[in-house]
Amino acid sequence: MKSAIEELEAKARAAKAASRRMAYLSTEVKNKALYNISNDLLAKKDEILAANQIDYKEAEASGMNAAMLDRLMLSPERLDSIASDVLAVAALPDPVGEIFDMRTLPNGLQIGRKRVPLGVIGAIYESRPNVTIDISVLCLKSGNAIILRGGKEAIHSNSALARVVQQAATRAGVPDGAVQFIENTDRTLVNHLLKMSNIIDLIIPRGGAGLIKLISENAAMPVVSGGIGVCHTYIDKSADVAKAVAIAFNAKVQRPTVCNALDTLLVHADIAPRYLPLIAAEWAKAGVEMHCDQRALSILESQPSLKLVPATDEDWGKEFLSLVAAIKVVDSLDEALEHIERYGSGHSEAIITEEYQPAMRFLNEVDAACVYANASTRFTDGGQFGLGAEVGISTQKLHARGPLGVKELTSYKWIIFGSGQARP
Amino acid sequence: MKSAIEELEAKARAAKAASRRMAYLSTEVKNKALYNISNDLLAKKDEILAANQIDYKEAEASGMNAAMLDRLMLSPERLDSIASDVLAVAALPDPVGEIFDMRTLPNGLQIGRKRVPLGVIGAIYESRPNVTIDISVLCLKSGNAIILRGGKEAIHSNSALARVVQQAATRAGVPDGAVQFIENTDRTLVNHLLKMSNIIDLIIPRGGAGLIKLISENAAMPVVSGGIGVCHTYIDKSADVAKAVAIAFNAKVQRPTVCNALDTLLVHADIAPRYLPLIAAEWAKAGVEMHCDQRALSILESQPSLKLVPATDEDWGKEFLSLVAAIKVVDSLDEALEHIERYGSGHSEAIITEEYQPAMRFLNEVDAACVYANASTRFTDGGQFGLGAEVGISTQKLHARGPLGVKELTSYKWIIFGSGQARP
Repeated sequence: MKSAIEELEAKARAAKAASRRMAYLSTEVKNKALYNISNDLLAKKDEILAANQIDYKEAEASGMNAAMLDRLMLSPERLDSIASDVLAVAALPDPVGEIFDMRTLPNGLQIGRKRVPLGVIGAIYESRPNVTIDISVLCLKSGNAIILRGGKEAIHSNSALARVVQQAATRAGVPDGAVQFIENTDRTLVNHLLKMSNIIDLIIPRGGAGLIKLISENAAMPVVSGGIGVCHTYIDKSADVAKAVAIAFNAKVQRPTVCNALDTLLVHADIAPRYLPLIAAEWAKAGVEMHCDQRALSILESQPSLKLVPATDEDWGKEFLSLVAAIKVVDSLDEALEHIERYGSGHSEAIITEEYQPAMRFLNEVDAACVYANASTRFTDGGQFGLGAEVGISTQKLHARGPLGVKELTSYKWIIFGSGQARP
Repeated sequence: MKSAIEELEAKARAAKAASRRMAYLSTEVKNKALYNISNDLLAKKDEILAANQIDYKEAEASGMNAAMLDRLMLSPERLDSIASDVLAVAALPDPVGEIFDMRTLPNGLQIGRKRVPLGVIGAIYESRPNVTIDISVLCLKSGNAIILRGGKEAIHSNSALARVVQQAATRAGVPDGAVQFIENTDRTLVNHLLKMSNIIDLIIPRGGAGLIKLISENAAMPVVSGGIGVCHTYIDKSADVAKAVAIAFNAKVQRPTVCNALDTLLVHADIAPRYLPLIAAEWAKAGVEMHCDQRALSILESQPSLKLVPATDEDWGKEFLSLVAAIKVVDSLDEALEHIERYGSGHSEAIITEEYQPAMRFLNEVDAACVYANASTRFTDGGQFGLGAEVGISTQKLHARGPLGVKELTSYKWIIFGSGQARP
């Protein structure tokens, strides 16, 4: 174990040293690295898929369930898609070097802020081997060095992919050591990694709630937390019913396993008798189970073929991550706002309304990373927001909120051009 | 103790509840609160000074040293100055509500970011009672609720000042509960406060290194760390000697007890024989003790009336906070950059040069909150940077770097105006 820790520390120090050079690496070199990665993913397809097959067979033999196996699996098509996503990141503007708030002070000092990389980013993740590429590429683009620590179940795939990244980056002129991969999957190494606050500037966890909790509680450095989304859609009394059905259907059904999917539907009492039967019928066709409060139940109970369950207190504020929705009838926008304030997780919240004032009040008063009027919460995503790609979605208020793209992986420094000024 | 903790929790919950309303309080109400505070500080001068006298006499009787007593003391002039600083904050633009990056996506969604307060800020501080006003005013201006926890030694002064803030804010229409003051000075309450990450969004510690360390290590929520400044000024071979003397003198002497004061002077070997005798003579007049490396020593040792000490390894990377400077002769800009990379604390660093390339390399390559060409590091200050006022100086890279003004006490949320969009 001692030598594994020493190796980890050596890798971390190498990443730190490389990060100093990465900070002023040219856009050309960074983009060249990304083109190389995209090309190599295709050129080395056989090698990568062979490594993935080893992981897949071991996982299958160990009894991993089908959903997890699917996350683990790479295919020629998936590699094509990953390679093409890398090119999309290469096409983004380089966030580093942007100079903003530049001005001349009365004493002649010219002062402004210049965007710089964060430094060294640690990624700790499970299952999906594509995370190795996603996070490496976003970190390289934003000038950060990276320490990758993937899960045991994907170790062969991750090793092969990390090798692709390292070789492609070096060939482009990225400083050696900028991309580090921890081969050793011993859990104690993660604990050690989480204490290296003098080297690692930010930890990005990607995986289940257990992993994220473990990391948030133990990391000595900042962690991008988030991912937990208890998302409400509120149907105002003035809502256009057709839009409200389409949006709530999309928010719940289009991809129910993700954090921006609808969890609780709040419906104004005045529109509930007209609206609820329509959305319930659509949801029922898609297999959605509805946990209804008493008033919603009394509207829907006579309707055939619905999966209705009386809601309990645990249903409010619950992230279902499946085809389950809680439904509550409210008497006013205020009651909806209070419910969201109490039970929301600060991720994504929506109002459906044809009136101006309720829309503006909702956008102003709801305290969440993303607040929508008349659209599906499923849009909360770096790609959908035009950020190109994301490393995660933050529900914290410090540093960055919502989808984290390449710009959110940067900081700034103040630069000051003087001509001999001393402070009076 | 139980009832003190319950009282603390009740105050924290009240601050949280108020913070929701504070988020969309009008600029007019916030500024009115600040005008009221400024007026009341003058109108209630006698009451405040009487409370301060109690603290001062107790501190004097307990044997507090003169420097600490001076920090504790309020006077009519100091209150005038504090009241006038409050008006300066009122005159700043309101950071909250700024909408940026707003654009229309191809699917018609109109999306942008809107600046919002952080929520609830906890301030834990020692000695100087003016911090009660400074932090309250910056938090009110930026729409944050605040929990104030001052030191035992200034409890009467802080209570009187917090009462002024609370009454002035309420009179202006700020929601009740937005300004909380913890009267109980029991230390265990601080530990309890530091665990309330579900309520407090950010902790600002103001005080000595011991307090900052205690808080950074124990807080469950983000802490604005910083304050530690190991600041270098590098005199390049091409420096204008007169400017270099004036700047280094200012950086060391103008206020030696603060974090942006010069700690180490790095001097290029080509200019050292001309430059060092001049700065050393000036510094000597101001009483500066110089901890010199061997080469600096050999240049200066024949010069009369200098306080010279041979430098030891501990002198590099040390924050002196007094009239002491370390001096090292280097052979190149690269050696200076390496020294700063190794020993700097990421606070403020300066180069003095008449050549273009060294200036640009220094500004690009040094990784610090504030990087200067041809100016004194003493300018690192919210007021000097045109931010109006500051709650502290951050040497972290996440969220905000350098002086933290009202804008840095905010976050943003994404606001999305749709017209029925669902995700394909």
